[in-house]
Amino acid sequence: MRDAVIEWVVRKGRMQHDEWSLPVVAETWDGGLNDINGFHVTKQDAWAAMDSARGGPVVEGSVGGGTGMVCNQFKGGIGTASRRLDPQDGGYMVGVLVQCNYGRRRYLRIAGTPVGQEIADLVPCRAPCSGARSGTAPAIPPDVGSIIIIVATDAPLLPHQLKRVARRAALGVGRLGGVASNSSGDIFIAFSTANARASRDSGLAQVSMASNEQITPLFEATVQATEEAIVNAMLAARTMIGADDLTVYGLPHDRLRAVLRKYNRLGP
Amino acid sequence: MRDAVIEWVVRKGRMQHDEWSLPVVAETWDGGLNDINGFHVTKQDAWAAMDSARGGPVVEGSVGGGTGMVCNQFKGGIGTASRRLDPQDGGYMVGVLVQCNYGRRRYLRIAGTPVGQEIADLVPCRAPCSGARSGTAPAIPPDVGSIIIIVATDAPLLPHQLKRVARRAALGVGRLGGVASNSSGDIFIAFSTANARASRDSGLAQVSMASNEQITPLFEATVQATEEAIVNAMLAARTMIGADDLTVYGLPHDRLRAVLRKYNRLGP
Amino acid sequence: MRDAVIEWVVRKGRMQHDEWSLPVVAETWDGGLNDINGFHVTKQDAWAAMDSARGGPVVEGSVGGGTGMVCNQFKGGIGTASRRLDPQDGGYMVGVLVQCNYGRRRYLRIAGTPVGQEIADLVPCRAPCSGARSGTAPAIPPDVGSIIIIVATDAPLLPHQLKRVARRAALGVGRLGGVASNSSGDIFIAFSTANARASRDSGLAQVSMASNEQITPLFEATVQATEEAIVNAMLAARTMIGADDLTVYGLPHDRLRAVLRKYNRLGP
Amino acid sequence: MRDAVIEWVVRKGRMQHDEWSLPVVAETWDGGLNDINGFHVTKQDAWAAMDSARGGPVVEGSVGGGTGMVCNQFKGGIGTASRRLDPQDGGYMVGVLVQCNYGRRRYLRIAGTPVGQEIADLVPCRAPCSGARSGTAPAIPPDVGSIIIIVATDAPLLPHQLKRVARRAALGVGRLGGVASNSSGDIFIAFSTANARASRDSGLAQVSMASNEQITPLFEATVQATEEAIVNAMLAARTMIGADDLTVYGLPHDRLRAVLRKYNRLGP
Repeated sequence: MRDAVIEWVVRKGRMQHDEWSLPVVAETWDGGLNDINGFHVTKQDAWAAMDSARGGPVVEGSVGGGTGMVCNQFKGGIGTASRRLDPQDGGYMVGVLVQCNYGRRRYLRIAGTPVGQEIADLVPCRAPCSGARSGTAPAIPPDVGSIIIIVATDAPLLPHQLKRVARRAALGVGRLGGVASNSSGDIFIAFSTANARASRDSGLAQVSMASNEQITPLFEATVQATEEAIVNAMLAARTMIGADDLTVYGLPHDRLRAVLRKYNRLGP
Repeated sequence: MRDAVIEWVVRKGRMQHDEWSLPVVAETWDGGLNDINGFHVTKQDAWAAMDSARGGPVVEGSVGGGTGMVCNQFKGGIGTASRRLDPQDGGYMVGVLVQCNYGRRRYLRIAGTPVGQEIADLVPCRAPCSGARSGTAPAIPPDVGSIIIIVATDAPLLPHQLKRVARRAALGVGRLGGVASNSSGDIFIAFSTANARASRDSGLAQVSMASNEQITPLFEATVQATEEAIVNAMLAARTMIGADDLTVYGLPHDRLRAVLRKYNRLGP
Repeated sequence: MRDAVIEWVVRKGRMQHDEWSLPVVAETWDGGLNDINGFHVTKQDAWAAMDSARGGPVVEGSVGGGTGMVCNQFKGGIGTASRRLDPQDGGYMVGVLVQCNYGRRRYLRIAGTPVGQEIADLVPCRAPCSGARSGTAPAIPPDVGSIIIIVATDAPLLPHQLKRVARRAALGVGRLGGVASNSSGDIFIAFSTANARASRDSGLAQVSMASNEQITPLFEATVQATEEAIVNAMLAARTMIGADDLTVYGLPHDRLRAVLRKYNRLGP
Repeated sequence: MRDAVIEWVVRKGRMQHDEWSLPVVAETWDGGLNDINGFHVTKQDAWAAMDSARGGPVVEGSVGGGTGMVCNQFKGGIGTASRRLDPQDGGYMVGVLVQCNYGRRRYLRIAGTPVGQEIADLVPCRAPCSGARSGTAPAIPPDVGSIIIIVATDAPLLPHQLKRVARRAALGVGRLGGVASNSSGDIFIAFSTANARASRDSGLAQVSMASNEQITPLFEATVQATEEAIVNAMLAARTMIGADDLTVYGLPHDRLRAVLRKYNRLGP
């Protein structure tokens, strides 16, 4: 896919023949739902995705790279959330996009409630799954896989500050009970849209920098948005039947609401 | 204190005159409760601590380096917790010791419940504090300070594996709502008591190594024990009045129980 | 190329349909001699390379990934060198393979002599280059590009020790005068062939570990072999005319010998 | 010494009673020449050093922390060197200060010549050393110890760029033949005097940043100045007799010149 991105840029005429690019392409393993070693995703798919990219709300759930994701043994995928800081904290925006493909059910907490223990069934199964609710012996190993977390902000943070922001994403995973299991190859990245001209100047650039004293609210926004984005990924994804009849269930909204009510986290 | 440790080792006759040692000494800032720049803690205090160290249960709360700690704007200090793995996971032990000195009240979650929002008063105040319960304008800045987390295990993990264990401690902080604010200089360290002879052999050593496939339960134990150890630090610490009449309140056990009950996390 | 490697492994029947692999594929930019954005290197080329791989001496110079390399503004490519430790140091072998694509001529030292200052001509030029010796205004920017250094050893080093070995490769680059310029994305990797079974054991593994007290000779061997491997890459590579008639000259052996003699580093 | 620095700052009235500081204090082991575990260096020595610090040329050789240093088995210590960039490269200054305490004689190269092989005698010995020139069996182990390298510049580099500069110091060590042996705990640090107000601003700061395209000359200056500073440390230090009659010889200037002449690196 990395090569496909370079080829796409070249075909668009955006790169001279002796220039180079180092695109950042991340992925997580979808070998349960997808016949991954069949190589069905081609560079044409990557080009179609980039050609159709445009502004506006991000589609969540089982889309794009999120199609084959499994998150806390529910159907996972793409999720997103954002926070705007108070004006006295700079009024900056923090947006988080996750591709959620990690986690063991029994660790899962949502809004602090033990959702994973309360909904212990509906784990991945191979058809025929018995009734609407499968048993608790998963058809694929629990707690494999990873999560990609991308943090974007318009706060003028410099690279060493963005590195600090990226590290905070882990705390959002922690709020949901994740333990970052052995096979995880989690990828966290943060970037700022400020100082856009800085890397283009060949001489001395003038850049804006938020002071470190202002950065804690950005950390808090990152943790909160990460927590919400992961939940959103599960909420948007629907039950999917994939390769070799593997069924991965979507997080049932009604049962989630019931759990939240049981633990007094939802209005009556 | 680092120099004091070296001197102590030399005085005990455990180091030849041309040997060297690189002791690991960690600290967190106690400049609220303690007149830190008065330098009242001397090397004699360090020596007394080491001389009196012996096996058995670790004292928790406002002891040793934990004396002046503030944790989630309650009185903090030393806390500890451990987990023993199931025999089929190797039966290993994981112990965690924390020196808790971080956190903003409003982020605090315990067992997933919003304790920090439910107990928004009792923030640090300067005497005279109005009545048993102070207001919510803290006398020292919220969300400064750090946490030290030490993970010990008898699982035969090699250095690159212990590094992975140490990173998981952050997920325990995440479960309690922490955001690792700007001024934090958090220190996580993990060590194994296995393969004790390895570093002493001058030639080829034979060392045991748990496979990576066995490591996820150790990650889970680390996250759980970190979460519990931080709570234990707050439970053990009592209200303290320190330098310049600063009062830092202990987490009130009865009110904590009330919160846990409200959110259905405590038996009736 | 990474995807090509995975596909090759699958086609060879070495990976089940739900397994995954994370091949390590490194590259350096060859956009001077190669029409890099024309994508002429295909997965079939990668497969052919892997199919034809066999034991024995490594071919050096302009082969494989080394084909389009430029090293200290001479023709670069693949180079290799090795050292065997004395028996009292364990008798271990250290082998280094480099893909040399870095460096500015004027920094170049070989065996400590200022080769880059003594042979200041023969920089890359576009045909027609004036006579056998071009001028000193290079046709492509000097001091772009990177180096890949791979260190292999049969010493039983653990991952944290191999990381130390990999870092020492930089000291070999230093001996030759390199400064690791801005565009460098140097890649150093070290691996051990010892303890081959360790990662396959699902339970407890017994691994051998050389003590840190034994590791300095391995560091020295790594630095020496890196230094020699880079020189070997330049010695083996011959003048090449590439895309858009770019000529990159091979290091002339006779002139190198003359420089070494001038600085008394060659027998009479 | 770290505590001594904090106490000094407090005594000078430069820190309020509830402020904190995190001074950076580095050291290398001087346990050969110094009775290190006798703790003869006190906080008063540190205060005297800071009280007497003033602008102007840096004293080199066996001064301050450099007093007990051994460098390539010659007397080492403090060395310094600087480079000014060409005006078209920004005209910036790069200064390097080293505390040289590393290295094995036989690796030592100066200006690319094999000084360590040519001057194989004069290794550390215990009195009575036989004649002016001792034998080659050193009284203390070769190749222990470390080097501290501090790079200062007025180029407006940001933290992520300074980190890149600091890494280049290793290449200067490489030029002199160093292998960074097992016991080394080398410390490299780089700072910029530009943007001095940036960390003091509590809100948005405007900072200058040299572009990455300008950074290679700063890398080159760092490597060159590091190489020279280490040589300067050895040139300035004189033979010293320390604890337990250990003699560490200064690099003899006349013999160094003879070696440089032999390898045609010195004018006639």
